Amino acid sequence: MKEYLKHDEWCIIEEGFNPDNHQSSESIFSLGNGKMGQRANFEETYSGPSLQGSYVAGIYYPDKTRVGWWKNGYPEYFAKVLNSPNWIGIDVQVDGHYLDLYTCKTENFKRTLNMKEGYLLREFTATMDDGKKVEISAKRFVSMADTENGAIRYSVTPLNFDGKIAFTAYLDGDVENEDSNYDEKFWNIIEMEAHNGEAYLVTETKKLGFRAAFGMKIAASIGDSKLNISPEVLKKESWVANRIERTVKEGECFTIDKIAGVCSSHNYSKDELLSATKKVTAAGFNKGFDALLLEHIKMWADKWVLSDIRIKGDVAAQQGIRFNIFHLNQTYTGEDERLNVGPKGFTGEKYGGSTYWDTEAYCVPFYIATAPSEVTRNLLVYRYKHLENAIKNAEKLGFKNGAALYPMVTMNGEECHNEWEITFEEIHRNGAIAFAIHNYIRHTNDEAYLAEYGLEVLMGISRFWSQRVTFSEERQKYVMLGVTGPNEYENNINNNWYTNKMAVWCLKYTIEALAKVKAMNETRYNEIIAKTSFNYHEEIPRWEDIIGNMHFPFNEKLNVFMQQDGFMDKEQILVKDLNPAERPINQYWSWDRILRSCYIKQADTLQGIYVFEEEYDLETIKRNFEFYEPRTVHESSLSPCVHSVLAAKIGDYDKAYEMYLRTSRLDIDDYNHEAHEGLHITSMAGTWMAIVEGFGGKRVHDGQLFLNPIIPQQWQEYSFRISFMGNDLEVVVNNKEISIISHAQNDITLNVFEQEVKVSPGQSTSIDAK
Amino acid sequence: MKEYLKHDEWCIIEEGFNPDNHQSSESIFSLGNGKMGQRANFEETYSGPSLQGSYVAGIYYPDKTRVGWWKNGYPEYFAKVLNSPNWIGIDVQVDGHYLDLYTCKTENFKRTLNMKEGYLLREFTATMDDGKKVEISAKRFVSMADTENGAIRYSVTPLNFDGKIAFTAYLDGDVENEDSNYDEKFWNIIEMEAHNGEAYLVTETKKLGFRAAFGMKIAASIGDSKLNISPEVLKKESWVANRIERTVKEGECFTIDKIAGVCSSHNYSKDELLSATKKVTAAGFNKGFDALLLEHIKMWADKWVLSDIRIKGDVAAQQGIRFNIFHLNQTYTGEDERLNVGPKGFTGEKYGGSTYWDTEAYCVPFYIATAPSEVTRNLLVYRYKHLENAIKNAEKLGFKNGAALYPMVTMNGEECHNEWEITFEEIHRNGAIAFAIHNYIRHTNDEAYLAEYGLEVLMGISRFWSQRVTFSEERQKYVMLGVTGPNEYENNINNNWYTNKMAVWCLKYTIEALAKVKAMNETRYNEIIAKTSFNYHEEIPRWEDIIGNMHFPFNEKLNVFMQQDGFMDKEQILVKDLNPAERPINQYWSWDRILRSCYIKQADTLQGIYVFEEEYDLETIKRNFEFYEPRTVHESSLSPCVHSVLAAKIGDYDKAYEMYLRTSRLDIDDYNHEAHEGLHITSMAGTWMAIVEGFGGKRVHDGQLFLNPIIPQQWQEYSFRISFMGNDLEVVVNNKEISIISHAQNDITLNVFEQEVKVSPGQSTSIDAK
Repeated sequence: MKEYLKHDEWCIIEEGFNPDNHQSSESIFSLGNGKMGQRANFEETYSGPSLQGSYVAGIYYPDKTRVGWWKNGYPEYFAKVLNSPNWIGIDVQVDGHYLDLYTCKTENFKRTLNMKEGYLLREFTATMDDGKKVEISAKRFVSMADTENGAIRYSVTPLNFDGKIAFTAYLDGDVENEDSNYDEKFWNIIEMEAHNGEAYLVTETKKLGFRAAFGMKIAASIGDSKLNISPEVLKKESWVANRIERTVKEGECFTIDKIAGVCSSHNYSKDELLSATKKVTAAGFNKGFDALLLEHIKMWADKWVLSDIRIKGDVAAQQGIRFNIFHLNQTYTGEDERLNVGPKGFTGEKYGGSTYWDTEAYCVPFYIATAPSEVTRNLLVYRYKHLENAIKNAEKLGFKNGAALYPMVTMNGEECHNEWEITFEEIHRNGAIAFAIHNYIRHTNDEAYLAEYGLEVLMGISRFWSQRVTFSEERQKYVMLGVTGPNEYENNINNNWYTNKMAVWCLKYTIEALAKVKAMNETRYNEIIAKTSFNYHEEIPRWEDIIGNMHFPFNEKLNVFMQQDGFMDKEQILVKDLNPAERPINQYWSWDRILRSCYIKQADTLQGIYVFEEEYDLETIKRNFEFYEPRTVHESSLSPCVHSVLAAKIGDYDKAYEMYLRTSRLDIDDYNHEAHEGLHITSMAGTWMAIVEGFGGKRVHDGQLFLNPIIPQQWQEYSFRISFMGNDLEVVVNNKEISIISHAQNDITLNVFEQEVKVSPGQSTSIDAK
Repeated sequence: MKEYLKHDEWCIIEEGFNPDNHQSSESIFSLGNGKMGQRANFEETYSGPSLQGSYVAGIYYPDKTRVGWWKNGYPEYFAKVLNSPNWIGIDVQVDGHYLDLYTCKTENFKRTLNMKEGYLLREFTATMDDGKKVEISAKRFVSMADTENGAIRYSVTPLNFDGKIAFTAYLDGDVENEDSNYDEKFWNIIEMEAHNGEAYLVTETKKLGFRAAFGMKIAASIGDSKLNISPEVLKKESWVANRIERTVKEGECFTIDKIAGVCSSHNYSKDELLSATKKVTAAGFNKGFDALLLEHIKMWADKWVLSDIRIKGDVAAQQGIRFNIFHLNQTYTGEDERLNVGPKGFTGEKYGGSTYWDTEAYCVPFYIATAPSEVTRNLLVYRYKHLENAIKNAEKLGFKNGAALYPMVTMNGEECHNEWEITFEEIHRNGAIAFAIHNYIRHTNDEAYLAEYGLEVLMGISRFWSQRVTFSEERQKYVMLGVTGPNEYENNINNNWYTNKMAVWCLKYTIEALAKVKAMNETRYNEIIAKTSFNYHEEIPRWEDIIGNMHFPFNEKLNVFMQQDGFMDKEQILVKDLNPAERPINQYWSWDRILRSCYIKQADTLQGIYVFEEEYDLETIKRNFEFYEPRTVHESSLSPCVHSVLAAKIGDYDKAYEMYLRTSRLDIDDYNHEAHEGLHITSMAGTWMAIVEGFGGKRVHDGQLFLNPIIPQQWQEYSFRISFMGNDLEVVVNNKEISIISHAQNDITLNVFEQEVKVSPGQSTSIDAK
């Protein structure tokens, strides 16, 4: 853990500059707007360790993975998240010397991520080698309103001298990926232009030929006086710049505004890309930094109305949840059904690909409750559009007859991850994709979705499960051999309880969905049956047989579900008895040792209990929680949130709070020593779950909304908003009462502490706290 | 399967040229002498598909493996077998046109590998584009006597014209590896020289800086007249050559002799390398092609005396066994304890590294019986010298206190393979290394080896096992979790029967060895105890506890040992019922499908029964064989031999013969569609086992040699030689009798059909066949 950041309700604040923390800060202070993103790299030269990261949505590189030992069925490529050309660069010279925070002395360094308004501000005083002091302020944002604009305002004030200050604002196409093998570079320069006050760069990725174009226009002022600039126009092989230099008096503030335009072939034809970028850059520039910022802040204000969670009396917790919500909103805005929620968003290169089961298992619950229903629907349609590829993927692995296996990691529906134990065996992802359809429908009542899109996906998935199980003659049960569950610290195991559970649920739900669509829309039903060549009289009985005869590992003596066959053969030393110097174990132990151990990377059996909570009584949940939680190391960011929700459920509020803090401050406090690689975006939705489903006790089943709010003793009050069946409700919880405030158009009935509560539009109702 | 090669007792013969078979032939017709090797690439230009392969022993490249997903404990590199500079090249021009078998018409093409004399001969008639016909003969060998010389005699005879024939004999440093990623090249040129009639090339590998130097000297003749040549001396960036051109009359034979010298920094200091190469080249050249060949043939004759197996009445079987023995002798000669038996020898790049458990489990039985005992001793000392690295390797994985895990693949004792399921989990290799010590001693009575080297290795290995097992509270037994057995079609399984068996045996044998060394040489014993900080009173009781309480999976109903926990949950469809179009399954099925299936890549439980055969009665062996053999796909080259031996043991001679043919003709008939990648050198020793241990029934236990010969009905007679306790015996088996001919210095007693037989030096004894 690192705890170098200041607690604040709305801001992330770093005071004092320590290069050792810089790469973590580059991740934590990242900016994004769903279309592009930027790590908190410095604008000016920085010679210290840094992970340069600028990302344009939808652009990736299909990296060759043919190294080492190949397995049949492996994908041809790994979809590398590409560091795109640099549009933030502004080199600063002070009397001919480059400003570089790694080498000069800094005082009063303060880096602020203002989450309310969505900007990054950096202020400090630097002392150059020759003793000259300058005060610096650099503010930037990636606009949520004008989503193809980024803007930077950079000021230098000489403090103890009169001298020459120069800004070189540039666009640089000569960029690298840190994870590049053999120092490959991935961008070709297509066009470059640099003129008086502006410059443009059109670049293209190797292999797939995605194009990204960057424009910049600059303005400058000294004090309040706008300057009439005629910058020096500079060009190198893949770099275009404007340089302005002025003699600045002691105490005068010399400022450059750099307005950038970033467009890509994801949204424009290649022909029009340069002209579009010029237009976008000019439009942003004409509005100017201040006006752009105002519009941006307004968009953020709207987002915060719907998604904010307020916590009174606990700044660390407040900061944590806002940090999570802020980054989720920066990563995915739900407007483009071709995009998804990458696990690192726009904050790092790691993992590659944009879409994991994280989306359905963690992000859907967040977006479904805090954003218009179209946002979640787009996430589901994304998978529907990949169904054909999922069927091809399953065929590659020997499945037939329309069985679909969705990829573990994808950009366009093709699998792009190749560890056999994950790619081929972590098949529970199929279950999450099916469950998200159910989750969407139970929140929206949009059953038409089933007929239009959902049913075909469910059928593909169920066909997969029905072929993936094996009937064990010895047990006279269906078994599921060779899988990896959500707990990736077990590989190629037999009968992962969670996976078996998910498989059976999928089969059941698909049978229900078939009946529903048939009843609702027989024409469409017949169309689907024909399209999928569905053999009702053969396939349904097989599914029913599996539903009725699946093997679920269970330990009689302990009376708990067993994560997998043979789990109790392991040495049962609890996490609390591990040597803290060897934590996280994935950084200290070899893989075989981890696999042999009983330690759980992330909620696995408990994940299943979380998903299907209605099926279990409190005692069962408690018993299983108390067995598995002491064996869980939470080395997946996706783990603590589920434990937090379940701990709240069974009344273990201390554990719920501990797990909440861990999930919400995972990156801010760098629990797992990896924030420098980028943030854990998808698990941030889990943080939201920890509050709303954990403390708030929000559940939806049988067409009804349930709340069972408790409040951690560390808090005075908290509030959140949720959308249910199109109705927008605000929930405020304190020690005395639960208030439900309706922002809906209609009367709405919900259940609080199992008692029916009605609220009318614009009204609020209170219930005594427990 | 491909069956394009002619059956012959002493030769491998390909008639007619088909480019589709060329890469397989390049492997099959390879030459080597333990120090270097050469695939059967053509000397002249060939524009068709070809795997260029020239290899110098001990030279490798530590390839970066940091692609994809890293696991703690992975090695830093993969030891790539390097294709070295080309010393065989002779371009041929016929009236200015390059001879190229891929584009010209060939007639009467015949490629012969003469295994008796160890040379490769190629003869054919080529018709050039312009209708000119030439007859070609090319003969080459890599000398077994002058082990740094290779020699080529290449002749061209115009058949229907008088014209200009030119030879360009060259050395080429610009070579590639087929398995190179990103088209990297691995050699730098250090020095080049080309003079009248000779040329030299000194090259260095990237990263590790191994040097290899190549020299050539040429002579030429027309008909019987030696030519006074003054070749054109040519040089390119990394290529040196001599070109000679003559006008040759119809029917005249124009011949070039190219004598090469190949030296490496493995045997010379860098300073002396060039001069050594010049000396070696000159020495070879001065002897001349014919004299070099005679000495080479003589060396082969000596090798065949000791290692030949003769089979009468079955040419395919005779050819198969000789092919195997020939390549084993080409790969490893036992003189250099720094070398080992690479799985592809000098015939291909695949796999990388030089040393696998194949050496101990398969090659040791061959060399121990057919070569002086120093050869096997050197193989064992090789591992002793790697003990420190094996301890480091185990430490990387979390083991302590001198526990040793030998690498799965190595060059110098460091692990250089990284698939976690192999590197970390295929730990039975430790067992084979321990067993080879026992095997060596029971054949040689060299118990001093234990004190000098063996005991330390055994202790390191036993310490590993004692830390690697887990005590299962549930079973009240020791279990071995997360392993991969010899059957690599199961990964990360629990309680692989073979591995558990091996582990327990190692512990027992180490306890015995401790006692033996103590009794034999107490000083040395105390030295070892001190050196290894051995705590007798803690470690031995733990070992004994494991020996007494290991869990061995067993199926009561079937009364067979179970390969691993849960094996009977798998779908039990037999190999015979598989779709032949999907065989070998490793080329058609995805990895997860293979893992889920019951199919066995290579002998696993049966391997254990083979190793510890004395412990089991015939009925047990039979029952297990009949259970496992129908589930075995033999997709490892190491599988059929063990099945052949056991089939002979239980009297299933048809199966024994089938498996013998499969192992002996695996590459000649390309059973697994992979001969083009190189040959399966180590499994060739298994072929020898199939005859000597299978049909011959050779066993050694309790200090005695046992024979139980049977003869396959397809054969009239067969004979083999074996060495036991320094005594050299010849065994001839036919339908009537078994003759034992002693080439030993002393009287020797052995057991044939469980009856004691005595033979005196130079005498022979016959026993009636069964």
